[in-house]
Amino acid sequence: MKNQLRDILEKLAKGEINVEQALEKLKFFPYEDLEFAKVDHHRFLRRDFPEVIFGPGKTDEQIISIAKKISEKEGNLLITKVSQSVYEKVKEIFPDAKYNSLAKLIYVKRDTSIKGKGKILVITAGTSDIPVAEEAYLTADVMGNKVEKIYDVGVAGLHRLFGEYEKVKEARVIICVAGMEGALPSVIAGITSVPIIAVPTSVGYGASFHGLSALLAMLNSCPGGVAVVNIDNGFGAAYLASMINRL
Amino acid sequence: MKNQLRDILEKLAKGEINVEQALEKLKFFPYEDLEFAKVDHHRFLRRDFPEVIFGPGKTDEQIISIAKKISEKEGNLLITKVSQSVYEKVKEIFPDAKYNSLAKLIYVKRDTSIKGKGKILVITAGTSDIPVAEEAYLTADVMGNKVEKIYDVGVAGLHRLFGEYEKVKEARVIICVAGMEGALPSVIAGITSVPIIAVPTSVGYGASFHGLSALLAMLNSCPGGVAVVNIDNGFGAAYLASMINRL
Amino acid sequence: MKNQLRDILEKLAKGEINVEQALEKLKFFPYEDLEFAKVDHHRFLRRDFPEVIFGPGKTDEQIISIAKKISEKEGNLLITKVSQSVYEKVKEIFPDAKYNSLAKLIYVKRDTSIKGKGKILVITAGTSDIPVAEEAYLTADVMGNKVEKIYDVGVAGLHRLFGEYEKVKEARVIICVAGMEGALPSVIAGITSVPIIAVPTSVGYGASFHGLSALLAMLNSCPGGVAVVNIDNGFGAAYLASMINRL
Amino acid sequence: MKNQLRDILEKLAKGEINVEQALEKLKFFPYEDLEFAKVDHHRFLRRDFPEVIFGPGKTDEQIISIAKKISEKEGNLLITKVSQSVYEKVKEIFPDAKYNSLAKLIYVKRDTSIKGKGKILVITAGTSDIPVAEEAYLTADVMGNKVEKIYDVGVAGLHRLFGEYEKVKEARVIICVAGMEGALPSVIAGITSVPIIAVPTSVGYGASFHGLSALLAMLNSCPGGVAVVNIDNGFGAAYLASMINRL
Amino acid sequence: MKNQLRDILEKLAKGEINVEQALEKLKFFPYEDLEFAKVDHHRFLRRDFPEVIFGPGKTDEQIISIAKKISEKEGNLLITKVSQSVYEKVKEIFPDAKYNSLAKLIYVKRDTSIKGKGKILVITAGTSDIPVAEEAYLTADVMGNKVEKIYDVGVAGLHRLFGEYEKVKEARVIICVAGMEGALPSVIAGITSVPIIAVPTSVGYGASFHGLSALLAMLNSCPGGVAVVNIDNGFGAAYLASMINRL
Amino acid sequence: MKNQLRDILEKLAKGEINVEQALEKLKFFPYEDLEFAKVDHHRFLRRDFPEVIFGPGKTDEQIISIAKKISEKEGNLLITKVSQSVYEKVKEIFPDAKYNSLAKLIYVKRDTSIKGKGKILVITAGTSDIPVAEEAYLTADVMGNKVEKIYDVGVAGLHRLFGEYEKVKEARVIICVAGMEGALPSVIAGITSVPIIAVPTSVGYGASFHGLSALLAMLNSCPGGVAVVNIDNGFGAAYLASMINRL
Amino acid sequence: MKNQLRDILEKLAKGEINVEQALEKLKFFPYEDLEFAKVDHHRFLRRDFPEVIFGPGKTDEQIISIAKKISEKEGNLLITKVSQSVYEKVKEIFPDAKYNSLAKLIYVKRDTSIKGKGKILVITAGTSDIPVAEEAYLTADVMGNKVEKIYDVGVAGLHRLFGEYEKVKEARVIICVAGMEGALPSVIAGITSVPIIAVPTSVGYGASFHGLSALLAMLNSCPGGVAVVNIDNGFGAAYLASMINRL
Amino acid sequence: MKNQLRDILEKLAKGEINVEQALEKLKFFPYEDLEFAKVDHHRFLRRDFPEVIFGPGKTDEQIISIAKKISEKEGNLLITKVSQSVYEKVKEIFPDAKYNSLAKLIYVKRDTSIKGKGKILVITAGTSDIPVAEEAYLTADVMGNKVEKIYDVGVAGLHRLFGEYEKVKEARVIICVAGMEGALPSVIAGITSVPIIAVPTSVGYGASFHGLSALLAMLNSCPGGVAVVNIDNGFGAAYLASMINRL
Repeated sequence: MKNQLRDILEKLAKGEINVEQALEKLKFFPYEDLEFAKVDHHRFLRRDFPEVIFGPGKTDEQIISIAKKISEKEGNLLITKVSQSVYEKVKEIFPDAKYNSLAKLIYVKRDTSIKGKGKILVITAGTSDIPVAEEAYLTADVMGNKVEKIYDVGVAGLHRLFGEYEKVKEARVIICVAGMEGALPSVIAGITSVPIIAVPTSVGYGASFHGLSALLAMLNSCPGGVAVVNIDNGFGAAYLASMINRL
Repeated sequence: MKNQLRDILEKLAKGEINVEQALEKLKFFPYEDLEFAKVDHHRFLRRDFPEVIFGPGKTDEQIISIAKKISEKEGNLLITKVSQSVYEKVKEIFPDAKYNSLAKLIYVKRDTSIKGKGKILVITAGTSDIPVAEEAYLTADVMGNKVEKIYDVGVAGLHRLFGEYEKVKEARVIICVAGMEGALPSVIAGITSVPIIAVPTSVGYGASFHGLSALLAMLNSCPGGVAVVNIDNGFGAAYLASMINRL
Repeated sequence: MKNQLRDILEKLAKGEINVEQALEKLKFFPYEDLEFAKVDHHRFLRRDFPEVIFGPGKTDEQIISIAKKISEKEGNLLITKVSQSVYEKVKEIFPDAKYNSLAKLIYVKRDTSIKGKGKILVITAGTSDIPVAEEAYLTADVMGNKVEKIYDVGVAGLHRLFGEYEKVKEARVIICVAGMEGALPSVIAGITSVPIIAVPTSVGYGASFHGLSALLAMLNSCPGGVAVVNIDNGFGAAYLASMINRL
Repeated sequence: MKNQLRDILEKLAKGEINVEQALEKLKFFPYEDLEFAKVDHHRFLRRDFPEVIFGPGKTDEQIISIAKKISEKEGNLLITKVSQSVYEKVKEIFPDAKYNSLAKLIYVKRDTSIKGKGKILVITAGTSDIPVAEEAYLTADVMGNKVEKIYDVGVAGLHRLFGEYEKVKEARVIICVAGMEGALPSVIAGITSVPIIAVPTSVGYGASFHGLSALLAMLNSCPGGVAVVNIDNGFGAAYLASMINRL
Repeated sequence: MKNQLRDILEKLAKGEINVEQALEKLKFFPYEDLEFAKVDHHRFLRRDFPEVIFGPGKTDEQIISIAKKISEKEGNLLITKVSQSVYEKVKEIFPDAKYNSLAKLIYVKRDTSIKGKGKILVITAGTSDIPVAEEAYLTADVMGNKVEKIYDVGVAGLHRLFGEYEKVKEARVIICVAGMEGALPSVIAGITSVPIIAVPTSVGYGASFHGLSALLAMLNSCPGGVAVVNIDNGFGAAYLASMINRL
Repeated sequence: MKNQLRDILEKLAKGEINVEQALEKLKFFPYEDLEFAKVDHHRFLRRDFPEVIFGPGKTDEQIISIAKKISEKEGNLLITKVSQSVYEKVKEIFPDAKYNSLAKLIYVKRDTSIKGKGKILVITAGTSDIPVAEEAYLTADVMGNKVEKIYDVGVAGLHRLFGEYEKVKEARVIICVAGMEGALPSVIAGITSVPIIAVPTSVGYGASFHGLSALLAMLNSCPGGVAVVNIDNGFGAAYLASMINRL
Repeated sequence: MKNQLRDILEKLAKGEINVEQALEKLKFFPYEDLEFAKVDHHRFLRRDFPEVIFGPGKTDEQIISIAKKISEKEGNLLITKVSQSVYEKVKEIFPDAKYNSLAKLIYVKRDTSIKGKGKILVITAGTSDIPVAEEAYLTADVMGNKVEKIYDVGVAGLHRLFGEYEKVKEARVIICVAGMEGALPSVIAGITSVPIIAVPTSVGYGASFHGLSALLAMLNSCPGGVAVVNIDNGFGAAYLASMINRL
Repeated sequence: MKNQLRDILEKLAKGEINVEQALEKLKFFPYEDLEFAKVDHHRFLRRDFPEVIFGPGKTDEQIISIAKKISEKEGNLLITKVSQSVYEKVKEIFPDAKYNSLAKLIYVKRDTSIKGKGKILVITAGTSDIPVAEEAYLTADVMGNKVEKIYDVGVAGLHRLFGEYEKVKEARVIICVAGMEGALPSVIAGITSVPIIAVPTSVGYGASFHGLSALLAMLNSCPGGVAVVNIDNGFGAAYLASMINRL
């Protein structure tokens, strides 16, 4: 490898190739080392997404310290799964920060431009799934999408879902949030042909085993078109939905 | 205890009470010992149910040997989850025995009287659930019920289920057989008000974990009216359904 | 589809068919769309059941807000698995609401008519299973059933169970609540021939794994006639028992 | 409900409303019954997708019987996870059927038009993941997508992945197939900003627990943009990728 | 059954048999109904064991109420896994009750007679296993056994165990308490030939999964002579050890 | 340490202590090194137990090779969980070897003396548990115990168990073998006061999870006096029972 | 055994062998009893490692009491996973004790000599893994190693890892701490050839199942050179790394 | 990034720096892109390790095809976990290939130079663990280490282990292979101070859950100095041991 590199450099030093040719050669250099810089450039392109701080497992101090660094940058901000007390401290750094107590989400939305091409729909099976759904809703919103929500239309009362069928039809991507038997994504998949991101929730007790029942059900969803994210991961679902919605 | 018993017997011996009174006293004997005889009598009443031999874990020899003893009795017979080779040997003992190769079920139906008051409906989510459903269907049939079946109406195509809604309405008990995400019982429960016995099946692969996904989903079924039996236990579901249908 | 629908409507508009014929045609409309209305009608019939709010996973605010909407309706009410503090707020909306602190159940029983045909019996294996049993007992009661209870008759002392055999015999449906080894439903099933709804409880420690041991035991119950609901789901058992008891 | 329906029909019969108005009213009919017809129409639109028969859990007879019905229709066909022996029989019905013995996939590709807007890339971590990847590759191909593949670029030798970075950059959707530690999707997600569908495989032994290790790893993928389908579900991943690629 | 019973009673009434003969016949009555009384008598014999109230899952009120009933009886008393606050209330009923705060055990030891024939030895692997070991030690003591203890002699420092080999040799039954890798019972079994009751503890963190690691290890103990009770079940181990020690 | 040892030896060499004193000192040598010899001696005492070769995981060659070495010793022999083909080869070495095809157990019983003080009773819940029970029965027999068996008396028909109550009463140790719900040990424990060794079996299907259901149930057995060995470990139960029976 | 021992001692007493010969004979004494003393001596050699008190499962009193005994010895000290309140009490015994509140680790570092031959590198995937990493870092430091750390270089941003490649290259042993998908050790193993000790952390939520996802991923690490310790066991990783670094 | 690169190249083209200086600069290039080449170089250094083909999950064809490519290179070769039939084909390519049928390992050992500094010791708890141990033994051997083995010295007979204490003392790294209760590594760790790599095996049945019991036990090993690889992963243990032994 090093010899190949030396060859290129020596040709450049000898004037046998010019700088542009050297750059070009390095671009297709084995193992794409310079491509790796593009990776980074690539990440630059992604800057259109807001900054995100994942709250779980971090101390308040760590969160505030990361927030401070970010505060020098522009753009939107999300801090996930944190308590009200963190919000109080964050507000001192970002006076325009808001807090959704159900989702335990801090968000700063300065950039309100719409980047997604269609609508993202967030559906929940039950009332108890709303905290996770709100995390998804707000994340999708802050990431520059038009977002709709339909809550509490689980399989126990499918007529309520069918009553909202217009909204389902209009969505470009659907985030489907459900705990317990986690059956809703399968039903939705049967009546639409857009991608569905299923979010199992830890809602339930006993044999729900903190979301395992919904998770397994969703992974085994019979109709095509469903993929699954982690239990309670409203953020992850919305982030993926945003990616898809920008395609 | 023994003294109380001796008292009763001595009173009887002395003629202070008669045999009927002794029997009555023994009936309310502490710890209901004689009631236990009623238990047995009770089992007699249940003789209306066919004889059943559970196949799994038994050697062919054990099954044939039990079948021989039963052959002296009248009434119907079921042998569950056995191979064709067992059937060949059973046919020599019960020439009128039949074999359902999907359900791996041997059955003898001599008594064709109807004992259930309404109709039992067996529904499956998919084609692959049919072996378990057939076990349930034939068990319910041999136990003296009117039985209907609707196969392959899973949540991926609910319109097929709704297309059979008349049958659903007419059922007095529903046996709902589903693997993978196990969502069908929840949907059925949302559109009927009769008891639903959910049978998870080991159909599926990967994260179905041999029926665990469907089992957990069914246990977490959000709408009321659903109870669950063991994975692949079509027999157990039909037996319970028969009990309910005779109420 | 829509064209088929338009055809029917145009024939009606032209007088080629009358309203009854149109209704009939719509009844057999492909995919039973109008049958779906019957589904709803069907749900109407179920209004005889009390309103239920499942507490777990809902905020106090959500529970109160749902309760307020329901307060305009008549009939009984159940709010499951909620704390005393919720009760205080609910009492302001429903002054006749009562609270069972063991079951953590709020209930309003205005309609005291008996709708079930026989008696529902609630049995527990141990003293520690009583909270779940009380949830079942009260639910069955508020749903219009005659209900009996026998507590603390687990397999460690079967003579206590046999001592209550009269009660067992009189039941039309049995709800059997047990934690730890979950053996009681199997024993009960051996001495009765009525449907048994088994409720595993999270009672126990160590290898009970929060009710998993009892759940698995009950699913593997050897004698027929047993179906299982979720761990600690006294409500679900009683709801299903009520359905069966109304047959 | 029925009365509401009768009202509309009677108004139409009496000429109080015209057919269009009746249709409009029915469109907003409670519980969207007629919308449900649109659901079906919607499914019609989806007919652009090939017919699919899921092999697992079906008998050879069932598969052939379903294939026969389908043979009257046009379009492409996929039969998943079946043995060579099924293929021999299917070839008699579909003489142009092909078989991929690694993926255990039968496919008929008559319609070769490209329906996806970009390229789908299928990546595997190891050689042993290829069967699942081939299922995904062929499914995506038969569903009308341009598909690329990069096999055996797992985290043990990331330079091989970076050597193929050009291909990664060009993809619109990425299907990432990995067993064992399931780390590849996380790495890919760190260097792209397109949706990644992760497919855990049952490749491995011991503590891979038949794909559980890869499944859990993928569900916990730290960078955003990853969703997961069932273990070994190459088909499901490709179906979802096709949906996304048509957006 | 009832006829057989009537026969016996009629023969007695007619003087064909006397009371003793009737009793004898009833003793060997089919299904041993009267033997069941012996069962109860049998339990009487067991009254030599102290009264026990299992704390977990019971409210303080339930425990106190049961304690009150027991207070009328003589003999020793154990209340397991309860807090100091329960003890305060129990002391009012049983002024001679003592509390071991490590084991969370209340005990009353009035009967100090030795009923076991040999010595019971309680061994722990680590310091953190002591609470469970103390539950076993005190239970065995209150049940009338000579008890020894050797704490903190786990496999990390076997020389400490061998340093206490004399004590090990003298034991008639060994209770071996260990968390984490649960290896100690296997080692002990290799150097003794007396029964070993292994008690896994929930000591540890991470992949100990609340005692599962120790439980599985102990169940798989290679040398013979080891049986296992529930995680943290010091009481159960001591109760069984007492039974064995009285043989 | 070595210095301490040298001291003792030097004192012996100098005649300051005699051999007996040296032995005594070494006996109390730190870390009981010489005690360890007693351990071995202790093992000698255990030679009264038959030689055992555990079959699972060993190649036929390994088993035969170990058997050959043992063939030079006297006494009984057990080879567990091996196929008929191993037996054919073992018979050439031990012409008096017998094979129980249910238990897959080879045994040589030359020493027929009775070493256990009482009777060991082997009980099974079902017919399918017999292979494991036979392993226990034969092991206990070859180890020099009087052994009784009662098969197929599970909780589904407790009257059969009570019908054998005399046998239960006479046992000094009970081995209770059950699969599925594993409830039998709890019931037995409620009617006896002798030690019960519970053996879960892998009998069952679906949610029995290869014996896990029975294992967990037995570990959570509510009445005292029950300890558990590994799933299907009839040998281990009988070995422990033999130890207890020799006390 | 004892006879063999007596033989040696008698020969020594008779002068047939001298002390050195006796020692030599005892050294090769069957079962190496005297070698066992060497074991202890061996432990002596290990005294170079600091004293360690594992906090979890111990009461504050137990920890303080052990600490007091140790305080008489020289050398360094570690007390793992304890709260600030324990530290307050320990500081009274060891005035030079320090406390790391992230790692919940008390440490006394009196001996600052370097015993490891190379550098140990501690890497974390995320910020939330830092508490476990600090436990490893401080342990390795107190055990006499040169230690480096690189935090927050998970697979979501591999360029950050490559940016620290110099440090990676210089390490002799690497401790790699990661939660969630646990992919980092596999990546590190692909770019180095030194031993990697992987520490899964309980960081994450939902399907991380308290570290199970990372644990399984690490156990299935595809590239060679990775071994795993318990979840959150920073101490154990550092202790093993110290052993390796002293080789 | 690209600009920095262009700067370096332009300076080189202008003669402001020479080729060596350019190479040096690129070496410390941000994100270590050229360092990545070193990574590869690094891999070169690792070429001292033999080529390895992991068998599981690969078809015979894939293995042979990879083997053919490798056959052009020099050095040793390992093919893990393959059947005799693969060996027959490999022998045609590598006539000097050997096959160990216990370990199911093909190996070619041309380079017999010793690269490890000390001795690697492979210990097994039982006879059934030998296949995994042989995989470790041969791998370590082919990788250029002096290797010793001690088989069948499990905790059931620790005197056998202590009888081999000399060998234990001489090892520089220990690979400890055990199934069932997996206790051996903890015992070994208590008597040595060298790194121990624990390999759980799937030996056992029932609650060993295919090696889970041993895996969990080893992860929870109380004494320090133990790290764990995947179940049955003899190769991985030996590879890591070789790395450590070359330090």
